[in-house]
Amino acid sequence: MPSEPKLRDDGEFALIARLAERLRRAAPAKPATEVHVGIGDDAAVTVPGGATVTSTEALIEGVHFRRETAPPAAIGRKALAAALSDLAAMGASAGEAYVALGLPDDFVEDDCLELYDALAALAAESGTAVLGGDLTRAPVLVLAITVVGHAPSGSAPVARDGASVGQVLAVTGELGGAAAGLLLLERPELATSLDPEIAAALRRRQLEPTPLLASGGALASAGASAMIDISDGIGADAGQIAAASRVRASIELERLPVQAGVAEVAAAAELERVDLAAAGGEDYELLAVLPAELTEDATAAVSAQGGRLTTIGRTAPGEGVELRGPDGSVRQPLGFDHLRPR
Amino acid sequence: MPSEPKLRDDGEFALIARLAERLRRAAPAKPATEVHVGIGDDAAVTVPGGATVTSTEALIEGVHFRRETAPPAAIGRKALAAALSDLAAMGASAGEAYVALGLPDDFVEDDCLELYDALAALAAESGTAVLGGDLTRAPVLVLAITVVGHAPSGSAPVARDGASVGQVLAVTGELGGAAAGLLLLERPELATSLDPEIAAALRRRQLEPTPLLASGGALASAGASAMIDISDGIGADAGQIAAASRVRASIELERLPVQAGVAEVAAAAELERVDLAAAGGEDYELLAVLPAELTEDATAAVSAQGGRLTTIGRTAPGEGVELRGPDGSVRQPLGFDHLRPR
Repeated sequence: MPSEPKLRDDGEFALIARLAERLRRAAPAKPATEVHVGIGDDAAVTVPGGATVTSTEALIEGVHFRRETAPPAAIGRKALAAALSDLAAMGASAGEAYVALGLPDDFVEDDCLELYDALAALAAESGTAVLGGDLTRAPVLVLAITVVGHAPSGSAPVARDGASVGQVLAVTGELGGAAAGLLLLERPELATSLDPEIAAALRRRQLEPTPLLASGGALASAGASAMIDISDGIGADAGQIAAASRVRASIELERLPVQAGVAEVAAAAELERVDLAAAGGEDYELLAVLPAELTEDATAAVSAQGGRLTTIGRTAPGEGVELRGPDGSVRQPLGFDHLRPR
Repeated sequence: MPSEPKLRDDGEFALIARLAERLRRAAPAKPATEVHVGIGDDAAVTVPGGATVTSTEALIEGVHFRRETAPPAAIGRKALAAALSDLAAMGASAGEAYVALGLPDDFVEDDCLELYDALAALAAESGTAVLGGDLTRAPVLVLAITVVGHAPSGSAPVARDGASVGQVLAVTGELGGAAAGLLLLERPELATSLDPEIAAALRRRQLEPTPLLASGGALASAGASAMIDISDGIGADAGQIAAASRVRASIELERLPVQAGVAEVAAAAELERVDLAAAGGEDYELLAVLPAELTEDATAAVSAQGGRLTTIGRTAPGEGVELRGPDGSVRQPLGFDHLRPR
């Protein structure tokens, strides 16, 4: 079935050695944990200083990305960013990463190195040490990344179940950009009436996500009672907090901070702005629930990290999520279900 | 492109809830580490007592297994067993597991539950707590499992680079069974002249691997200087130790402990016995290097765990691996390269 391998003749072990070398060059000077055994053994050995926070993300070609629109660098960065974003949503700092990579025959060695270089660059940027993984053939490109982070010093990790009634919902940054960027990548004609710089920023938002580790740490320290990262759309992700905390999340649509150009892309695609801003995923912003009296301090703490925090609603008795329009209309969120065919 | 989803209508979150419930029922009564946050949040939070040992394994349909010959239960067990086997090879005990699962459309919910039940059963058997993961669609069945173990008490984790010249190579259990079992599954006609019970044991060896955590711990405590699990064939895996430790591994072929029926299956397939015993992978036995004076104690320690240890060679100055025949012939091992097309 498969054609000749496009990797160099020296095969798996040699490619692993070349990837490991790239990771070593990009390794953080001061890893978050003591590393006794790194890449190249049966397993990595580390000595964590306290609680560890662990998450796994899988990215599958044809489901999470298409190689026609996402270059190898974008795929490598996004896989690690998505995993680290889960640590940010706990208020944890980055520690180690383990990367399982499945390579199709037509993903040549240069593609592989480009992917790894982008992954290593984000690892360096975020202070993550890549300590191991697995490399194998696969019919499509597969990345599964497990990240281990470290609990915030002086505060507990922020889970999803800590929200209570009467608290404030607040979101970092701006929404809808990643979904709008994906539309522009898939349907370039939608950009015709858009400022080229705004269009480029939207595409970057899709291709070069950044995990908000500093903002997550600031929100944890500021006393967030629950937090989640926005990977499936704020409506669906607010639903996760609502379910875990047994509250109702009430979001005012006109308060959602929306990235420049999102409304125009939505209109060009004959969608509503809210379809991208509330149901579009992959922005990797953070949705936090805060006691009302802490909101001001939390906003200042996020600003101090170069971020922005916007109050978008409240928790109420009940269950589920409501998206309230300026006219008083109420709608249910549409989420993204990774198991449904698109 | 894809057809209607074969999962129940309530989608991803509901399936995750059903899988999580199965894992909770199978969870070890006394997890190896303090678990603060388990399945269902952005990340799991644990408090390890000391050094942690972490490994990742990916199993991809069409590369590591075919659904025609491997039932869902075998796939689930094998993915976790392969990951835990890396912990065994460090002498570590099992701790936590994180499971990324990519499901093709024709892998129905009952298949998924069967896979998870087998994975949960091995988790319970080995004292592993499954604390998280990721669930997504995929064009073929994909499992990527990261396991976190805990360093042996009273001894350091056993890496690959600790062997020195003049030490003893020893292997647990019996070799070649998993490769012979795979041949029988792929070509049932090879079993015609074989005792049915022996054939069944060979097939089980392929479909129901067991990570040798107790033997690995015993070998670490007994003072093994290097260790690896046999996933790619003892020749290739001995080569890993040789390269990391900068020694030559000399293996006497007639000393290899070979499972009953392997020679017959090899003959029926017009292969040599050594092709399965030395180059066949997936036995998940342990290859240890020991100072000669500790070999007797190590053998007793493995026996006390219900295992068996066989001396098969020595380390020598030089590099690489030699397989020595009883006639004095020397050959190089053939290994298995997961990146090469089969």
